[in-house]
Amino acid sequence: MKKRSFPLPKVYQLLGTGPVVLVTTSANGKPNVMALAWHTVMDFAPPVVGLVVGEQSLSFKTLKATKECVINIPTAELAKQVVGCGNTSGRTVDKFTKFGLTPVAAVKVNPPLIAECYASLECRVVDVKLVAKYNFFILKVVKAWVDPTIREPQTIHQRGICEFMVAGKTITIPSKM
Amino acid sequence: MKKRSFPLPKVYQLLGTGPVVLVTTSANGKPNVMALAWHTVMDFAPPVVGLVVGEQSLSFKTLKATKECVINIPTAELAKQVVGCGNTSGRTVDKFTKFGLTPVAAVKVNPPLIAECYASLECRVVDVKLVAKYNFFILKVVKAWVDPTIREPQTIHQRGICEFMVAGKTITIPSKM
Repeated sequence: MKKRSFPLPKVYQLLGTGPVVLVTTSANGKPNVMALAWHTVMDFAPPVVGLVVGEQSLSFKTLKATKECVINIPTAELAKQVVGCGNTSGRTVDKFTKFGLTPVAAVKVNPPLIAECYASLECRVVDVKLVAKYNFFILKVVKAWVDPTIREPQTIHQRGICEFMVAGKTITIPSKM
Repeated sequence: MKKRSFPLPKVYQLLGTGPVVLVTTSANGKPNVMALAWHTVMDFAPPVVGLVVGEQSLSFKTLKATKECVINIPTAELAKQVVGCGNTSGRTVDKFTKFGLTPVAAVKVNPPLIAECYASLECRVVDVKLVAKYNFFILKVVKAWVDPTIREPQTIHQRGICEFMVAGKTITIPSKM
Protein backbone atom coordinates (compact mmCIF):
# COMPACT_ATOMS: atom_id res chain seq x y z
CA MET A 1 0.00 0.00 0.00
CA LYS A 2 1.23 3.46 -0.93
CA LYS A 3 -0.49 5.13 2.01
CA ARG A 4 1.36 6.17 5.17
CA SER A 5 0.14 7.14 8.64
CA PHE A 6 -1.13 10.74 8.68
CA PRO A 7 -1.41 13.07 11.72
CA LEU A 8 -4.96 13.20 13.09
CA PRO A 9 -5.04 17.00 13.68
CA LYS A 10 -4.60 17.48 9.92
CA VAL A 11 -7.53 15.27 8.89
CA TYR A 12 -9.76 18.36 8.45
CA GLN A 13 -7.56 19.29 5.47
CA LEU A 14 -8.57 16.09 3.67
CA LEU A 15 -12.33 16.36 4.16
CA GLY A 16 -12.68 20.15 4.34
CA THR A 17 -12.81 20.52 0.56
CA GLY A 18 -16.00 18.41 0.49
CA PRO A 19 -14.99 15.43 -1.69
CA VAL A 20 -17.23 12.49 -2.53
CA VAL A 21 -16.08 9.55 -0.36
CA LEU A 22 -16.34 5.77 -0.38
CA VAL A 23 -17.39 4.48 3.03
CA THR A 24 -16.56 0.88 3.90
CA THR A 25 -18.36 -1.13 6.55
CA SER A 26 -18.08 -4.77 7.57
CA ALA A 27 -20.73 -7.18 8.86
CA ASN A 28 -19.69 -10.67 10.00
CA GLY A 29 -16.42 -10.35 8.13
CA LYS A 30 -18.07 -9.34 4.84
CA PRO A 31 -17.04 -5.86 3.69
CA ASN A 32 -19.28 -3.46 1.80
CA VAL A 33 -18.79 0.02 0.32
CA MET A 34 -21.06 2.98 -0.40
CA ALA A 35 -20.57 6.30 -2.19
CA LEU A 36 -21.42 9.33 -0.06
CA ALA A 37 -21.38 13.08 -0.70
CA TRP A 38 -23.00 14.56 2.39
CA HIS A 39 -20.49 14.93 5.23
CA THR A 40 -18.83 17.64 7.28
CA VAL A 41 -15.83 18.08 9.52
CA MET A 42 -17.04 18.91 13.06
CA ASP A 43 -13.80 19.28 15.05
CA PHE A 44 -10.01 19.39 14.58
CA ALA A 45 -8.40 17.25 17.31
CA PRO A 46 -9.47 14.64 17.90
CA PRO A 47 -11.00 14.88 14.44
CA VAL A 48 -14.79 14.51 14.46
CA VAL A 49 -16.80 14.01 11.28
CA GLY A 50 -20.54 13.91 10.53
CA LEU A 51 -22.00 11.65 7.80
CA VAL A 52 -25.50 11.51 6.32
CA VAL A 53 -26.07 7.86 5.35
CA GLY A 54 -29.14 6.86 3.30
CA GLU A 55 -31.37 4.83 5.57
CA GLN A 56 -32.35 2.32 2.86
CA SER A 57 -28.77 1.20 2.39
CA LEU A 58 -27.13 -1.91 3.80
CA SER A 59 -24.30 0.38 4.96
CA PHE A 60 -26.77 2.30 7.18
CA LYS A 61 -27.83 -0.92 8.86
CA THR A 62 -24.26 -2.14 9.31
CA LEU A 63 -22.91 1.21 10.54
CA LYS A 64 -25.72 1.47 13.09
CA ALA A 65 -25.02 -2.06 14.35
CA THR A 66 -21.19 -2.15 14.29
CA LYS A 67 -20.43 1.58 14.89
CA GLU A 68 -17.33 1.38 12.71
CA CYS A 69 -16.42 2.45 9.19
CA VAL A 70 -13.55 3.67 7.03
CA ILE A 71 -13.97 6.90 5.02
CA ASN A 72 -11.91 6.51 1.83
CA ILE A 73 -11.25 9.46 -0.49
CA PRO A 74 -11.13 8.59 -4.21
CA THR A 75 -9.75 10.72 -7.05
CA ALA A 76 -11.13 11.32 -10.55
CA GLU A 77 -9.78 8.09 -12.07
CA LEU A 78 -12.19 6.21 -9.76
CA ALA A 79 -15.26 8.28 -10.76
CA LYS A 80 -16.93 5.42 -12.67
CA GLN A 81 -16.46 3.05 -9.75
CA VAL A 82 -17.87 5.68 -7.37
CA VAL A 83 -21.04 5.97 -9.47
CA GLY A 84 -21.16 2.18 -9.73
CA CYS A 85 -21.04 1.86 -5.94
CA GLY A 86 -23.90 4.36 -5.73
CA ASN A 87 -25.97 2.40 -8.28
CA THR A 88 -25.72 -1.00 -6.58
CA SER A 89 -26.51 -2.57 -3.23
CA GLY A 90 -24.23 -4.71 -1.10
CA ARG A 91 -27.28 -6.89 -0.50
CA THR A 92 -26.94 -8.34 -4.02
CA VAL A 93 -23.44 -7.44 -5.21
CA ASP A 94 -19.89 -7.84 -3.88
CA LYS A 95 -18.87 -4.31 -4.87
CA PHE A 96 -15.15 -4.88 -4.19
CA THR A 97 -15.07 -7.62 -6.83
CA LYS A 98 -17.47 -5.92 -9.25
CA PHE A 99 -15.61 -2.59 -9.28
CA GLY A 100 -12.05 -3.86 -8.86
CA LEU A 101 -11.53 -2.30 -5.44
CA THR A 102 -8.89 -3.87 -3.19
CA PRO A 103 -9.63 -4.22 0.53
CA VAL A 104 -6.66 -3.66 2.86
CA ALA A 105 -6.86 -4.48 6.57
CA ALA A 106 -7.32 -1.46 8.84
CA VAL A 107 -5.44 -1.16 12.14
CA LYS A 108 -8.09 0.01 14.60
CA VAL A 109 -11.42 -1.03 13.06
CA ASN A 110 -12.84 -4.07 11.24
CA PRO A 111 -13.91 -2.51 7.88
CA PRO A 112 -11.12 -2.38 5.30
CA LEU A 113 -9.31 0.54 3.70
CA ILE A 114 -9.62 0.74 -0.10
CA ALA A 115 -6.14 0.46 -1.66
CA GLU A 116 -7.09 2.52 -4.75
CA CYS A 117 -8.16 5.57 -2.68
CA TYR A 118 -5.40 8.08 -1.89
CA ALA A 119 -6.59 8.59 1.71
CA SER A 120 -8.46 6.46 4.26
CA LEU A 121 -9.80 7.39 7.69
CA GLU A 122 -10.60 4.71 10.26
CA CYS A 123 -13.64 5.86 12.24
CA ARG A 124 -15.79 4.94 15.22
CA VAL A 125 -19.34 6.24 15.75
CA VAL A 126 -19.51 8.43 18.89
CA ASP A 127 -23.00 9.96 18.69
CA VAL A 128 -26.25 8.62 17.20
CA LYS A 129 -28.67 11.22 18.59
CA LEU A 130 -29.57 12.49 15.11
CA VAL A 131 -29.64 9.13 13.31
CA ALA A 132 -33.37 8.52 13.76
CA LYS A 133 -34.40 11.94 12.44
CA TYR A 134 -31.66 12.87 9.95
CA ASN A 135 -29.66 9.66 9.25
CA PHE A 136 -26.75 11.67 10.67
CA PHE A 137 -23.88 9.75 12.30
CA ILE A 138 -21.11 11.51 14.26
CA LEU A 139 -17.74 9.75 14.16
CA LYS A 140 -14.30 10.14 15.64
CA VAL A 141 -11.38 9.48 13.29
CA VAL A 142 -9.07 7.12 15.17
CA LYS A 143 -6.41 6.49 12.49
CA ALA A 144 -5.63 8.23 9.20
CA TRP A 145 -3.70 7.09 6.12
CA VAL A 146 -2.60 9.18 3.12
CA ASP A 147 -0.49 8.58 0.02
CA PRO A 148 2.27 11.15 0.69
CA THR A 149 3.17 11.44 -3.01
CA ILE A 150 -0.19 13.08 -3.82
CA ARG A 151 -0.04 16.80 -3.00
CA GLU A 152 -3.04 18.12 -4.91
CA PRO A 153 -5.50 15.21 -5.14
CA GLN A 154 -7.97 15.38 -8.02
CA THR A 155 -10.90 14.66 -5.74
CA ILE A 156 -14.44 14.65 -7.14
CA HIS A 157 -17.26 16.77 -5.72
CA GLN A 158 -20.97 16.19 -6.32
CA ARG A 159 -22.78 18.73 -8.54
CA GLY A 160 -25.70 16.42 -9.35
CA ILE A 161 -26.71 12.77 -9.52
CA CYS A 162 -24.14 11.97 -12.20
CA GLU A 163 -22.20 15.28 -12.40
CA PHE A 164 -19.00 15.93 -10.53
CA MET A 165 -16.64 18.87 -10.19
CA VAL A 166 -13.02 17.75 -10.32
CA ALA A 167 -10.66 19.57 -7.91
CA GLY A 168 -8.70 22.32 -9.67
CA LYS A 169 -5.64 24.35 -8.71
CA THR A 170 -4.68 25.31 -5.15
CA ILE A 171 -4.41 28.97 -4.16
CA THR A 172 -2.85 30.45 -1.01
CA ILE A 173 -4.20 33.64 0.58
CA PRO A 174 -2.16 35.28 3.36
CA SER A 175 -4.02 34.90 6.66
CA LYS A 176 -3.46 36.14 10.19
CA MET A 177 -5.03 33.01 11.71
CA MET B 1 -28.94 41.93 -8.49
CA LYS B 2 -27.95 39.28 -11.05
CA LYS B 3 -29.41 36.43 -8.98
CA ARG B 4 -32.76 34.86 -9.76
CA SER B 5 -35.06 32.59 -7.74
CA PHE B 6 -33.77 28.97 -7.76
CA PRO B 7 -35.82 25.79 -7.14
CA LEU B 8 -35.40 24.49 -3.58
CA PRO B 9 -35.09 20.77 -4.53
CA LYS B 10 -31.91 21.64 -6.47
CA VAL B 11 -30.17 23.41 -3.59
CA TYR B 12 -28.16 20.24 -2.80
CA GLN B 13 -26.35 20.80 -6.12
CA LEU B 14 -24.99 24.13 -4.87
CA LEU B 15 -23.69 22.95 -1.50
CA GLY B 16 -22.91 19.32 -2.36
CA THR B 17 -19.48 20.17 -3.76
CA GLY B 18 -18.44 21.48 -0.33
CA PRO B 19 -17.60 25.15 -1.05
CA VAL B 20 -16.47 27.68 1.54
CA VAL B 21 -19.47 29.92 2.29
CA LEU B 22 -20.12 33.38 3.73
CA VAL B 23 -22.89 33.25 6.32
CA THR B 24 -24.75 36.46 7.09
CA THR B 25 -26.68 37.09 10.29
CA SER B 26 -28.43 40.18 11.59
CA ALA B 27 -28.86 41.44 15.16
CA ASN B 28 -31.02 44.51 15.81
CA GLY B 29 -30.80 45.51 12.16
CA LYS B 30 -26.99 45.29 12.07
CA PRO B 31 -25.75 42.66 9.61
CA ASN B 32 -22.60 40.59 10.09
CA VAL B 33 -20.82 37.96 7.99
CA MET B 34 -18.57 34.98 8.74
CA ALA B 35 -16.54 32.59 6.57
CA LEU B 36 -17.39 28.94 7.12
CA ALA B 37 -16.09 25.69 5.62
CA TRP B 38 -17.77 23.00 7.71
CA HIS B 39 -21.26 22.25 6.46
CA THR B 40 -23.24 19.42 4.90
CA VAL B 41 -26.45 18.91 2.98
CA MET B 42 -28.81 16.75 5.08
CA ASP B 43 -31.91 16.41 2.87
CA PHE B 44 -33.19 17.24 -0.63
CA ALA B 45 -36.72 18.67 -0.34
CA PRO B 46 -37.29 20.68 1.64
CA PRO B 47 -33.53 21.25 1.63
CA VAL B 48 -31.94 20.82 5.05
CA VAL B 49 -28.36 21.89 5.80
CA GLY B 50 -26.07 21.47 8.81
CA LEU B 51 -23.51 24.14 9.79
CA VAL B 52 -20.69 24.02 12.35
CA VAL B 53 -20.34 27.58 13.66
CA GLY B 54 -17.38 28.55 15.88
CA GLU B 55 -18.78 29.24 19.34
CA GLN B 56 -16.52 32.22 20.01
CA SER B 57 -17.92 34.14 17.06
CA LEU B 58 -20.53 36.90 17.18
CA SER B 59 -22.31 34.98 14.39
CA PHE B 60 -22.76 32.00 16.73
CA LYS B 61 -24.42 34.22 19.34
CA THR B 62 -26.66 35.92 16.77
CA LEU B 63 -27.64 32.70 14.97
CA LYS B 64 -28.54 31.07 18.28
CA ALA B 65 -30.69 34.07 19.28
CA THR B 66 -32.35 34.94 15.95
CA LYS B 67 -32.45 31.48 14.30
CA GLU B 68 -31.97 33.00 10.85
CA CYS B 69 -29.09 33.34 8.41
CA VAL B 70 -28.24 33.49 4.72
CA ILE B 71 -25.65 31.09 3.30
CA ASN B 72 -23.88 32.89 0.45
CA ILE B 73 -21.53 31.05 -1.93
CA PRO B 74 -18.53 33.06 -3.14
CA THR B 75 -16.24 32.31 -6.08
CA ALA B 76 -12.46 32.62 -6.37
CA GLU B 77 -12.39 36.37 -7.06
CA LEU B 78 -13.71 36.86 -3.49
CA ALA B 79 -11.05 34.64 -1.86
CA LYS B 80 -9.23 37.55 -0.18
CA GLN B 81 -12.47 38.90 1.25
CA VAL B 82 -13.36 35.41 2.51
CA VAL B 83 -10.07 35.16 4.40
CA GLY B 84 -10.56 38.72 5.63
CA CYS B 85 -13.98 37.81 7.03
CA GLY B 86 -12.37 34.84 8.79
CA ASN B 87 -9.65 37.05 10.29
CA THR B 88 -11.91 39.70 11.81
CA SER B 89 -14.82 39.90 14.24
CA GLY B 90 -18.13 41.64 13.72
CA ARG B 91 -17.74 42.85 17.31
CA THR B 92 -15.12 45.40 16.19
CA VAL B 93 -15.46 45.67 12.40
CA ASP B 94 -18.28 46.33 9.94
CA LYS B 95 -17.17 43.62 7.53
CA PHE B 96 -19.52 44.68 4.73
CA THR B 97 -17.82 48.09 4.57
CA LYS B 98 -14.29 46.81 5.20
CA PHE B 99 -14.42 44.12 2.51
CA GLY B 100 -16.63 45.90 -0.03
CA LEU B 101 -19.52 43.46 0.27
CA THR B 102 -22.98 44.73 -0.68
CA PRO B 103 -25.96 43.69 1.46
CA VAL B 104 -29.20 43.04 -0.45
CA ALA B 105 -32.52 42.55 1.36
CA ALA B 106 -33.66 38.93 1.62
CA VAL B 107 -37.30 37.97 1.11
CA LYS B 108 -38.03 35.56 3.95
CA VAL B 109 -35.41 36.33 6.62
CA ASN B 110 -33.82 39.43 8.17
CA PRO B 111 -30.10 38.86 7.36
CA PRO B 112 -29.07 40.15 3.92
CA LEU B 113 -27.89 38.34 0.82
CA ILE B 114 -24.40 39.32 -0.39
CA ALA B 115 -24.67 40.78 -3.91
CA GLU B 116 -21.11 39.70 -4.89
CA CYS B 117 -21.80 35.98 -4.18
CA TYR B 118 -23.22 33.99 -7.11
CA ALA B 119 -25.71 32.09 -4.89
CA SER B 120 -27.54 32.87 -1.64
CA LEU B 121 -29.73 30.62 0.50
CA GLU B 122 -32.16 32.10 3.02
CA CYS B 123 -32.31 29.77 6.02
CA ARG B 124 -34.14 29.21 9.30
CA VAL B 125 -32.73 27.11 12.16
CA VAL B 126 -34.93 24.05 12.76
CA ASP B 127 -32.89 21.98 15.23
CA VAL B 128 -30.42 23.03 17.95
CA LYS B 129 -30.01 19.65 19.71
CA LEU B 130 -26.31 19.45 18.81
CA VAL B 131 -25.40 23.12 19.28
CA ALA B 132 -24.27 22.77 22.91
CA LYS B 133 -21.94 19.82 22.22
CA TYR B 134 -20.80 20.32 18.60
CA ASN B 135 -21.76 23.93 17.65
CA PHE B 136 -23.89 22.22 14.99
CA PHE B 137 -26.98 24.05 13.71
CA ILE B 138 -29.55 22.36 11.45
CA LEU B 139 -31.33 24.70 9.05
CA LYS B 140 -34.08 24.57 6.47
CA VAL B 141 -33.47 26.54 3.27
CA VAL B 142 -36.63 28.60 2.72
CA LYS B 143 -35.62 30.59 -0.39
CA ALA B 144 -32.72 30.21 -2.84
CA TRP B 145 -31.13 32.65 -5.30
CA VAL B 146 -28.59 31.91 -8.04
CA ASP B 147 -26.97 33.91 -10.84
CA PRO B 148 -28.25 31.88 -13.83
CA THR B 149 -25.36 33.00 -16.06
CA ILE B 150 -22.82 31.05 -13.96
CA ARG B 151 -22.86 27.38 -14.99
CA GLU B 152 -19.58 26.16 -13.51
CA PRO B 153 -18.88 28.42 -10.53
CA GLN B 154 -15.23 28.69 -9.49
CA THR B 155 -16.05 28.00 -5.88
CA ILE B 156 -13.26 27.74 -3.29
CA HIS B 157 -12.79 24.74 -0.99
CA GLN B 158 -10.74 24.71 2.20
CA ARG B 159 -7.48 22.71 2.12
CA GLY B 160 -5.96 24.49 5.13
CA ILE B 161 -6.09 27.72 7.11
CA CYS B 162 -5.08 29.86 4.13
CA GLU B 163 -5.08 27.28 1.31
CA PHE B 164 -8.02 26.72 -0.99
CA MET B 165 -8.75 24.38 -3.86
CA VAL B 166 -10.50 26.20 -6.72
CA ALA B 167 -13.26 24.24 -8.46
CA GLY B 168 -12.05 22.66 -11.71
CA LYS B 169 -13.83 21.10 -14.66
CA THR B 170 -17.17 19.26 -14.50
CA ILE B 171 -17.41 15.61 -15.56
CA THR B 172 -20.53 13.55 -16.22
CA ILE B 173 -20.65 9.82 -15.51
CA PRO B 174 -23.64 7.81 -16.77
CA SER B 175 -25.74 6.71 -13.80
CA LYS B 176 -28.79 4.50 -13.39
CA MET B 177 -30.07 6.57 -10.45
